[in-house]
Amino acid sequence: MPPFKLHGMVGSTNTNRVFAVLNELDLDYELITVDLTIGAHKNPDYLAFNPFGQLPAFEDGDIKLFESRAIARYLAANYRGSGPDLLRSGNKAESAAVEVWLDVESQDFNPPASVLVFEVFIKHLLFKKGPDEAVVQLQEAKLGKVLDVYEKRLSESKYLAGDEFTLADLNHYPYLYALSKTAHAGLVTSRPHVSAWWDEIAARPAWKKIVAASPY
Amino acid sequence: MPPFKLHGMVGSTNTNRVFAVLNELDLDYELITVDLTIGAHKNPDYLAFNPFGQLPAFEDGDIKLFESRAIARYLAANYRGSGPDLLRSGNKAESAAVEVWLDVESQDFNPPASVLVFEVFIKHLLFKKGPDEAVVQLQEAKLGKVLDVYEKRLSESKYLAGDEFTLADLNHYPYLYALSKTAHAGLVTSRPHVSAWWDEIAARPAWKKIVAASPY
Ligand SMILES: N[C@@H](CCC(=O)N[C@@H](CS)C(=O)NCC(=O)O)C(=O)O
Ligand SMILES: N[C@@H](CCC(=O)N[C@@H](CS)C(=O)NCC(=O)O)C(=O)O
Repeated sequence: MPPFKLHGMVGSTNTNRVFAVLNELDLDYELITVDLTIGAHKNPDYLAFNPFGQLPAFEDGDIKLFESRAIARYLAANYRGSGPDLLRSGNKAESAAVEVWLDVESQDFNPPASVLVFEVFIKHLLFKKGPDEAVVQLQEAKLGKVLDVYEKRLSESKYLAGDEFTLADLNHYPYLYALSKTAHAGLVTSRPHVSAWWDEIAARPAWKKIVAASPY
Repeated sequence: MPPFKLHGMVGSTNTNRVFAVLNELDLDYELITVDLTIGAHKNPDYLAFNPFGQLPAFEDGDIKLFESRAIARYLAANYRGSGPDLLRSGNKAESAAVEVWLDVESQDFNPPASVLVFEVFIKHLLFKKGPDEAVVQLQEAKLGKVLDVYEKRLSESKYLAGDEFTLADLNHYPYLYALSKTAHAGLVTSRPHVSAWWDEIAARPAWKKIVAASPY
C-alpha cells in the first residue's frame, strides 16, 4: 500500500482535523507542505487537488479527496484498524447520534467559531492585522448560544454523541484549540461541562502530539 | 415498525431536504407540522427534539435526530430498500467522492446560497421585508465562484460525485429550487453544465412531487 499523502500545513486548523484522525487511528502518512503564507494553495498544481484552493487535500493511492471533514470521515470509515470506532458504525442509535453531532459541529459550531478564530487569532498570525470588533461581538454571541446547547448536552452525556469519544468530538479540535489561545477562551472555561469535556478530549495522546508540534 | 415522524413544514427549505430523501427511498412517514410563522419551533415541546429550535427534526421509533443532512444520511444509510444507493456505500472510490461533494455542499455552497436565498426570497415571504443589497452582492459573488468550480466539475462528470445521482446532488435541492424562483436564477442558468445538471435532478419524480405541493 502506498502511504497516504496529506497536503496541508502544520498549524493550519483544517489540516489539524486530519492530523487528529490519522493519529487516533495510528496511520502513517507523508505530509506534503502547501505553504499558505506564500500562496502555494492557489498554484495550479494544488488546485488540481482542491479546486477551491484551500488546505487540506489527501491522497490514498488513486483516491483523491479534499474537505477536511470528508477526509476525516473517509479515514474513520475505511481504516479503523485497532483504533476507536469514531463513527459507532455497528450501532444504529449510536451512529445516528454521531451523525447529528457531526452536523451540529459543521452547521452550528463551525460558522461562528471559524470566523471568530479568524478575527481574533489568524488575522494577526498571518497578516499582523487586528480584529473587526463588530464581527467579533456578533460571532462571540452566536458561539455562546451554541455552547449553551453543548453545556446542557454535556451535562447529560460524557461526549457529544454519547458515552464514547467519536468523530463528532474530534472535529471540534482545531477551532477550540485556537480559541483556547485567545482572550475568548472563557467561552469554554465559563461553562463547566463544556470545559470538562474540552479538558478530557484535549488530553488524548493523538491530540497532544499535534499540540507538541504546533507553532501556537 | 412505527412510521417515521418528520417534524417540519411544507415549504421549509431544510425540511425539503428530508422530504426529498424520503421520496427517493419511497418511505412512508407522518408529517408533524411545526409552524415557523407562529414561532412553534421555539416551544419547549419542540426544543426537546431540536435544542437549536430549527426545522426539521425526525423520529424513527426511539431514535431521534435533527439537522437535515444528518437525517438525510441516516435514511440513506439505513433504509435504502429498492431505492438508489445515495451514498455509493459499496465502493471505496465512489463513496469517497460522495463524501467530498457532500462537504462541498455543506461548507462551500450552503453558506452563500442559504444567506442569498434568505435575503432575496425568505425575508419577503415571511416578513414582507426587502433584501440588504450589500449582503446580496457579497453572497452572490461568493456563490458565483463556487458555481464556477461546479461548472468545471460537471463538464467532467454527469453528477457531482460521478456517474450516478447521490446524496451530494440531492442536498442541493432546497436552495437551488428557491433560487430558481428569484431574479438570481441566472447564477445557475448562465452556466451550461450546472444548468443541465439542475434540469436533470429537478426532473426526478421524487423532487417533482415536492414542487407540486410547494407553496412557491
Ligand atoms: N471547509 C474546508 C475549509 C478549508 C480552509 O478554509 N482551509 C484554510 C486553511 S486552515 C485555507 O486554505 N485558507 C486559505 C483560503 O481560503 O484561501 C475544510 O474543512 O477543509
Ligand atoms: N442546519 C439546519 C438548519 C435548519 C434551519 O435553518 N431551519 C429553518 C427552516 S428551513 C429554521 O428553523 N429557521 C428558523 C430559525 O432559525 O429560527 C438543518 O440543516 O437542519
